[in-house]
Amino acid sequence: MTVQNNGMDVMTAIFQRRSVRHFLDAPVDRKIIMESLRAASWAPSGLNNQPWRFALIWDGELKEQLAKLTRYAAVLRGAAVLIPVFLDKEASYDHIKDVQAVGAAVQNLLLALHSKGLGAAWIGEILKNQERVLDVLDLPERLQLMAVVAVGHPAHRNQSSHRQSLEELIIFEK
Amino acid sequence: MTVQNNGMDVMTAIFQRRSVRHFLDAPVDRKIIMESLRAASWAPSGLNNQPWRFALIWDGELKEQLAKLTRYAAVLRGAAVLIPVFLDKEASYDHIKDVQAVGAAVQNLLLALHSKGLGAAWIGEILKNQERVLDVLDLPERLQLMAVVAVGHPAHRNQSSHRQSLEELIIFEK
Repeated sequence: MTVQNNGMDVMTAIFQRRSVRHFLDAPVDRKIIMESLRAASWAPSGLNNQPWRFALIWDGELKEQLAKLTRYAAVLRGAAVLIPVFLDKEASYDHIKDVQAVGAAVQNLLLALHSKGLGAAWIGEILKNQERVLDVLDLPERLQLMAVVAVGHPAHRNQSSHRQSLEELIIFEK
Repeated sequence: MTVQNNGMDVMTAIFQRRSVRHFLDAPVDRKIIMESLRAASWAPSGLNNQPWRFALIWDGELKEQLAKLTRYAAVLRGAAVLIPVFLDKEASYDHIKDVQAVGAAVQNLLLALHSKGLGAAWIGEILKNQERVLDVLDLPERLQLMAVVAVGHPAHRNQSSHRQSLEELIIFEK
Protein backbone atom coordinates (compact mmCIF):
# COMPACT_ATOMS: atom_id res chain seq x y z
CA MET A 1 0.00 0.00 0.00
CA THR A 2 1.18 3.47 -0.88
CA VAL A 3 1.36 5.79 2.10
CA GLN A 4 1.87 9.50 1.59
CA ASN A 5 3.96 11.28 4.15
CA ASN A 6 2.49 14.70 4.73
CA GLY A 7 4.62 15.47 7.70
CA MET A 8 1.90 16.02 10.28
CA ASP A 9 2.20 13.87 13.36
CA VAL A 10 -0.98 12.02 14.26
CA MET A 11 -1.13 13.42 17.80
CA THR A 12 -0.63 16.94 16.46
CA ALA A 13 -3.46 16.44 13.99
CA ILE A 14 -5.76 15.09 16.71
CA PHE A 15 -5.06 17.94 19.14
CA GLN A 16 -4.90 20.78 16.59
CA ARG A 17 -7.97 19.92 14.49
CA ARG A 18 -10.91 22.28 15.01
CA SER A 19 -14.26 22.72 13.32
CA VAL A 20 -13.76 25.25 10.52
CA ARG A 21 -16.90 27.16 9.54
CA HIS A 22 -15.40 30.05 7.55
CA PHE A 23 -13.64 29.33 4.29
CA LEU A 24 -11.65 31.27 1.71
CA ASP A 25 -13.25 31.61 -1.72
CA ALA A 26 -10.79 29.18 -3.28
CA PRO A 27 -11.18 25.77 -4.89
CA VAL A 28 -9.80 22.59 -3.34
CA ASP A 29 -7.92 19.93 -5.24
CA ARG A 30 -10.10 16.90 -5.98
CA LYS A 31 -7.06 14.65 -5.49
CA ILE A 32 -6.77 15.78 -1.87
CA ILE A 33 -10.45 15.04 -1.32
CA MET A 34 -10.09 11.58 -2.84
CA GLU A 35 -7.02 10.77 -0.73
CA SER A 36 -8.88 11.95 2.38
CA LEU A 37 -11.88 9.79 1.49
CA ARG A 38 -9.50 6.87 1.07
CA ALA A 39 -8.32 7.61 4.62
CA ALA A 40 -11.97 7.63 5.74
CA SER A 41 -12.45 4.21 4.17
CA TRP A 42 -9.61 2.75 6.27
CA ALA A 43 -11.58 3.14 9.47
CA PRO A 44 -12.40 -0.11 11.24
CA SER A 45 -15.92 -1.54 11.09
CA GLY A 46 -17.63 -4.57 12.57
CA LEU A 47 -16.87 -7.63 10.47
CA ASN A 48 -15.15 -5.12 8.14
CA ASN A 49 -18.57 -4.37 6.61
CA GLN A 50 -17.55 -0.81 5.61
CA PRO A 51 -21.07 0.64 5.84
CA TRP A 52 -20.01 4.21 4.92
CA ARG A 53 -20.92 5.88 1.63
CA PHE A 54 -20.05 9.37 0.41
CA ALA A 55 -21.39 11.98 -1.97
CA LEU A 56 -19.32 14.84 -3.39
CA ILE A 57 -21.06 18.14 -4.12
CA TRP A 58 -19.07 20.75 -6.04
CA ASP A 59 -21.99 22.26 -7.93
CA GLY A 60 -23.14 25.65 -6.65
CA GLU A 61 -26.83 25.05 -7.30
CA LEU A 62 -26.83 21.73 -5.43
CA LYS A 63 -24.86 23.31 -2.56
CA GLU A 64 -27.52 25.99 -2.33
CA GLN A 65 -30.32 23.42 -2.22
CA LEU A 66 -28.58 21.61 0.66
CA ALA A 67 -27.74 24.88 2.42
CA LYS A 68 -31.47 25.64 2.64
CA LEU A 69 -31.97 22.48 4.71
CA THR A 70 -29.90 23.62 7.70
CA ARG A 71 -29.50 26.67 9.85
CA TYR A 72 -25.77 26.38 9.10
CA ALA A 73 -26.55 27.50 5.54
CA ALA A 74 -23.62 29.94 5.46
CA VAL A 75 -21.16 27.14 6.24
CA LEU A 76 -22.46 25.01 3.39
CA ARG A 77 -22.56 27.94 0.96
CA GLY A 78 -18.99 28.95 1.80
CA ALA A 79 -17.50 25.48 1.43
CA ALA A 80 -15.57 24.46 -1.68
CA VAL A 81 -17.05 20.98 -1.52
CA LEU A 82 -19.72 19.26 0.56
CA ILE A 83 -19.39 15.61 1.52
CA PRO A 84 -22.69 14.09 2.63
CA VAL A 85 -21.91 10.88 4.54
CA PHE A 86 -24.36 7.99 4.63
CA LEU A 87 -24.81 4.63 6.30
CA ASP A 88 -25.83 2.05 3.69
CA LYS A 89 -28.56 0.10 5.47
CA GLU A 90 -28.07 -2.80 3.05
CA ALA A 91 -24.44 -3.10 4.23
CA SER A 92 -25.45 -2.85 7.90
CA TYR A 93 -25.26 -5.70 10.38
CA ASP A 94 -25.71 -3.89 13.70
CA HIS A 95 -26.97 -0.32 13.63
CA ILE A 96 -25.18 0.94 16.76
CA LYS A 97 -21.84 -0.55 15.72
CA ASP A 98 -22.28 0.69 12.16
CA VAL A 99 -23.05 4.23 13.31
CA GLN A 100 -19.87 4.17 15.40
CA ALA A 101 -17.93 2.93 12.37
CA VAL A 102 -19.25 5.85 10.30
CA GLY A 103 -18.13 8.19 13.08
CA ALA A 104 -14.66 6.64 12.95
CA ALA A 105 -14.57 7.11 9.17
CA VAL A 106 -15.59 10.77 9.49
CA GLN A 107 -12.85 11.30 12.05
CA ASN A 108 -10.25 9.85 9.65
CA LEU A 109 -11.62 12.18 6.98
CA LEU A 110 -11.32 15.23 9.26
CA LEU A 111 -7.79 14.33 10.37
CA ALA A 112 -6.66 13.73 6.79
CA LEU A 113 -8.12 17.03 5.59
CA HIS A 114 -6.53 18.88 8.50
CA SER A 115 -3.12 17.31 7.81
CA LYS A 116 -3.37 18.55 4.21
CA GLY A 117 -4.11 22.12 5.26
CA LEU A 118 -7.87 22.06 4.64
CA GLY A 119 -10.59 22.83 7.14
CA ALA A 120 -13.90 21.09 7.69
CA ALA A 121 -17.10 21.33 9.69
CA TRP A 122 -19.04 18.22 10.68
CA ILE A 123 -22.68 19.27 10.26
CA GLY A 124 -25.20 17.07 12.05
CA GLU A 125 -28.06 19.55 12.35
CA ILE A 126 -29.11 18.83 8.75
CA LEU A 127 -30.15 15.30 9.78
CA LYS A 128 -33.55 16.76 10.68
CA ASN A 129 -34.05 17.04 6.90
CA GLN A 130 -32.42 13.78 5.89
CA GLU A 131 -35.30 12.75 3.59
CA ARG A 132 -35.06 16.04 1.72
CA VAL A 133 -31.29 15.58 1.31
CA LEU A 134 -32.00 12.23 -0.34
CA ASP A 135 -34.59 13.93 -2.56
CA VAL A 136 -32.18 16.68 -3.66
CA LEU A 137 -29.53 14.11 -4.58
CA ASP A 138 -32.06 11.58 -5.92
CA LEU A 139 -30.61 8.84 -3.71
CA PRO A 140 -32.41 5.72 -2.48
CA GLU A 141 -33.96 5.22 0.96
CA ARG A 142 -31.42 2.58 1.90
CA LEU A 143 -28.92 5.41 2.50
CA GLN A 144 -29.29 6.93 5.97
CA LEU A 145 -27.74 10.40 6.20
CA MET A 146 -25.18 10.56 9.03
CA ALA A 147 -23.55 13.97 8.46
CA VAL A 148 -22.57 16.56 5.90
CA VAL A 149 -18.90 17.51 6.02
CA ALA A 150 -18.26 21.00 4.61
CA VAL A 151 -14.69 21.42 3.34
CA GLY A 152 -12.56 24.34 2.20
CA HIS A 153 -9.46 26.39 2.83
CA PRO A 154 -9.73 27.82 6.36
CA ALA A 155 -10.26 31.58 6.57
CA HIS A 156 -8.55 31.45 9.95
CA ARG A 157 -7.07 28.84 12.28
CA ASN A 158 -6.26 28.01 15.87
CA GLN A 159 -9.58 28.86 17.43
CA SER A 160 -9.74 27.63 20.98
CA SER A 161 -11.78 24.70 22.23
CA HIS A 162 -11.93 22.80 25.47
CA ARG A 163 -12.40 19.28 26.76
CA GLN A 164 -13.32 17.73 30.08
CA SER A 165 -10.41 16.47 32.14
CA LEU A 166 -9.50 12.79 32.04
CA GLU A 167 -10.48 12.59 35.70
CA GLU A 168 -14.06 13.35 34.66
CA LEU A 169 -14.04 10.98 31.69
CA ILE A 170 -12.52 7.91 33.35
CA ILE A 171 -15.38 6.61 35.43
CA PHE A 172 -13.72 3.43 36.68
CA GLU A 173 -10.17 2.17 37.08
CA LYS A 174 -8.88 -0.97 38.71
CA MET B 1 -1.74 23.00 24.59
CA THR B 2 1.18 20.59 24.74
CA VAL B 3 1.48 18.38 21.69
CA GLN B 4 3.81 15.40 21.73
CA ASN B 5 5.55 14.62 18.50
CA ASN B 6 5.78 10.87 18.12
CA GLY B 7 6.95 10.99 14.58
CA MET B 8 4.16 9.01 12.93
CA ASP B 9 2.43 10.79 10.09
CA VAL B 10 -1.34 10.84 10.39
CA MET B 11 -1.93 9.24 6.98
CA THR B 12 0.57 6.50 7.80
CA ALA B 13 -1.23 5.81 11.07
CA ILE B 14 -4.61 5.68 9.33
CA PHE B 15 -3.45 3.33 6.57
CA GLN B 16 -1.18 1.10 8.71
CA ARG B 17 -3.44 0.58 11.72
CA ARG B 18 -4.89 -2.91 11.98
CA SER B 19 -6.92 -4.74 14.59
CA VAL B 20 -4.44 -6.51 16.88
CA ARG B 21 -5.82 -9.58 18.63
CA HIS B 22 -2.60 -11.26 19.80
CA PHE B 23 -0.47 -9.54 22.40
CA LEU B 24 2.89 -10.10 24.05
CA ASP B 25 2.82 -10.87 27.76
CA ALA B 26 4.19 -7.44 28.67
CA PRO B 27 2.76 -4.50 30.61
CA VAL B 28 1.91 -1.19 28.98
CA ASP B 29 2.82 2.20 30.40
CA ARG B 30 -0.17 3.89 32.02
CA LYS B 31 1.12 7.27 30.78
CA ILE B 32 0.74 6.12 27.17
CA ILE B 33 -2.80 4.98 27.87
CA MET B 34 -3.66 8.31 29.48
CA GLU B 35 -2.20 10.29 26.59
CA SER B 36 -4.14 8.12 24.14
CA LEU B 37 -7.35 8.69 26.09
CA ARG B 38 -6.63 12.40 25.97
CA ALA B 39 -6.43 12.02 22.19
CA ALA B 40 -9.78 10.20 22.26
CA SER B 41 -11.30 13.09 24.19
CA TRP B 42 -10.32 15.53 21.44
CA ALA B 43 -12.76 14.01 19.00
CA PRO B 44 -15.52 16.33 17.84
CA SER B 45 -19.05 15.94 19.21
CA GLY B 46 -22.34 17.66 18.57
CA LEU B 47 -22.51 20.90 20.59
CA ASN B 48 -19.17 19.69 22.05
CA ASN B 49 -21.16 17.55 24.49
CA GLN B 50 -18.32 14.97 24.85
CA PRO B 51 -20.60 12.02 25.61
CA TRP B 52 -17.77 9.45 25.86
CA ARG B 53 -16.69 7.84 29.11
CA PHE B 54 -13.95 5.29 29.71
CA ALA B 55 -13.07 2.56 32.18
CA LEU B 56 -9.57 1.14 32.64
CA ILE B 57 -9.20 -2.51 33.61
CA TRP B 58 -5.75 -3.70 34.58
CA ASP B 59 -6.86 -6.27 37.16
CA GLY B 60 -6.60 -9.89 36.04
CA GLU B 61 -9.72 -11.06 37.86
CA LEU B 62 -11.87 -8.30 36.34
CA LYS B 63 -10.40 -8.98 32.90
CA GLU B 64 -11.40 -12.61 33.30
CA GLN B 65 -14.96 -11.67 34.27
CA LEU B 66 -15.27 -9.50 31.16
CA ALA B 67 -13.60 -12.13 28.96
CA LYS B 68 -16.36 -14.58 29.86
CA LEU B 69 -18.92 -12.20 28.32
CA THR B 70 -17.61 -12.47 24.74
CA ARG B 71 -16.55 -15.13 22.32
CA TYR B 72 -13.36 -13.06 21.91
CA ALA B 73 -12.36 -14.12 25.43
CA ALA B 74 -8.78 -14.87 24.39
CA VAL B 75 -8.30 -11.32 23.10
CA LEU B 76 -9.48 -9.83 26.38
CA ARG B 77 -7.43 -12.26 28.46
CA GLY B 78 -4.27 -11.52 26.47
CA ALA B 79 -4.56 -7.73 26.65
CA ALA B 80 -2.48 -5.69 29.08
CA VAL B 81 -5.39 -3.34 29.67
CA LEU B 82 -9.05 -3.25 28.67
CA ILE B 83 -10.81 0.02 27.95
CA PRO B 84 -14.59 -0.29 28.06
CA VAL B 85 -16.06 2.74 26.27
CA PHE B 86 -19.47 4.12 27.19
CA LEU B 87 -21.95 6.71 26.02
CA ASP B 88 -23.18 8.71 29.00
CA LYS B 89 -26.92 9.00 28.34
CA GLU B 90 -27.12 11.97 30.70
CA ALA B 91 -24.63 13.84 28.48
CA SER B 92 -26.51 12.86 25.31
CA TYR B 93 -28.49 15.25 23.14
CA ASP B 94 -29.05 13.16 20.00
CA HIS B 95 -28.37 9.46 20.16
CA ILE B 96 -27.29 8.92 16.53
CA LYS B 97 -24.92 11.90 16.60
CA ASP B 98 -23.57 10.89 20.00
CA VAL B 99 -22.89 7.32 18.88
CA GLN B 100 -20.95 8.71 15.90
CA ALA B 101 -18.99 10.95 18.26
CA VAL B 102 -18.04 7.94 20.39
CA GLY B 103 -16.90 6.18 17.22
CA ALA B 104 -14.74 9.19 16.38
CA ALA B 105 -13.24 9.13 19.89
CA VAL B 106 -12.46 5.41 19.61
CA GLN B 107 -10.75 6.03 16.28
CA ASN B 108 -8.56 8.73 17.84
CA LEU B 109 -7.74 6.25 20.61
CA LEU B 110 -6.77 3.53 18.12
CA LEU B 111 -4.64 5.90 16.03
CA ALA B 112 -2.87 7.26 19.11
CA LEU B 113 -2.13 3.76 20.44
CA HIS B 114 -0.85 2.65 17.04
CA SER B 115 1.41 5.69 16.76
CA LYS B 116 2.92 4.77 20.14
CA GLY B 117 3.68 1.20 19.09
CA LEU B 118 0.76 -0.46 20.85
CA GLY B 119 -1.92 -2.62 19.29
CA ALA B 120 -5.63 -2.71 19.95
CA ALA B 121 -8.78 -4.59 19.04
CA TRP B 122 -12.16 -2.85 18.97
CA ILE B 123 -14.53 -5.45 20.41
CA GLY B 124 -18.20 -4.85 19.69
CA GLU B 125 -19.49 -8.39 20.10
CA ILE B 126 -19.54 -7.98 23.89
CA LEU B 127 -22.40 -5.46 23.54
CA LYS B 128 -24.78 -8.41 23.62
CA ASN B 129 -23.89 -8.58 27.33
CA GLN B 130 -23.78 -4.86 28.06
CA GLU B 131 -25.92 -5.16 31.21
CA ARG B 132 -23.57 -7.77 32.63
CA VAL B 133 -20.57 -5.55 31.89
CA LEU B 134 -22.21 -2.80 33.95
CA ASP B 135 -22.84 -5.34 36.71
CA VAL B 136 -19.22 -6.53 36.78
CA LEU B 137 -17.96 -2.95 37.03
CA ASP B 138 -20.81 -1.81 39.30
CA LEU B 139 -21.61 1.10 36.98
CA PRO B 140 -24.95 2.90 36.63
CA GLU B 141 -27.55 2.31 33.89
CA ARG B 142 -26.98 5.75 32.42
CA LEU B 143 -23.78 4.40 30.84
CA GLN B 144 -24.45 2.61 27.55
CA LEU B 145 -21.61 0.29 26.57
CA MET B 146 -20.33 1.12 23.08
CA ALA B 147 -17.20 -1.05 22.82
CA VAL B 148 -14.35 -2.68 24.72
CA VAL B 149 -10.91 -1.78 23.38
CA ALA B 150 -8.31 -4.43 24.22
CA VAL B 151 -4.77 -3.02 24.28
CA GLY B 152 -1.28 -4.48 24.45
CA HIS B 153 2.05 -4.87 22.71
CA PRO B 154 1.40 -6.54 19.34
CA ALA B 155 2.66 -10.11 18.99
CA HIS B 156 2.96 -9.46 15.25
CA ARG B 157 2.23 -6.66 12.80
CA ASN B 158 1.38 -5.82 9.23
CA GLN B 159 -1.47 -8.26 8.71
CA SER B 160 -3.29 -7.55 5.52
CA SER B 161 -6.74 -6.05 5.22
CA HIS B 162 -8.79 -4.71 2.36
CA ARG B 163 -11.25 -1.96 1.58
CA GLN B 164 -13.77 -1.29 -1.15
CA SER B 165 -12.61 1.03 -3.91
CA LEU B 166 -13.57 4.71 -3.79
CA GLU B 167 -15.62 4.13 -6.93
CA GLU B 168 -17.88 1.84 -4.89
CA LEU B 169 -18.05 4.18 -1.90
CA ILE B 170 -18.78 7.45 -3.70
CA ILE B 171 -22.41 7.07 -4.66
CA PHE B 172 -22.94 10.57 -6.09
CA GLU B 173 -20.73 13.31 -7.50
CA LYS B 174 -21.67 16.54 -9.20
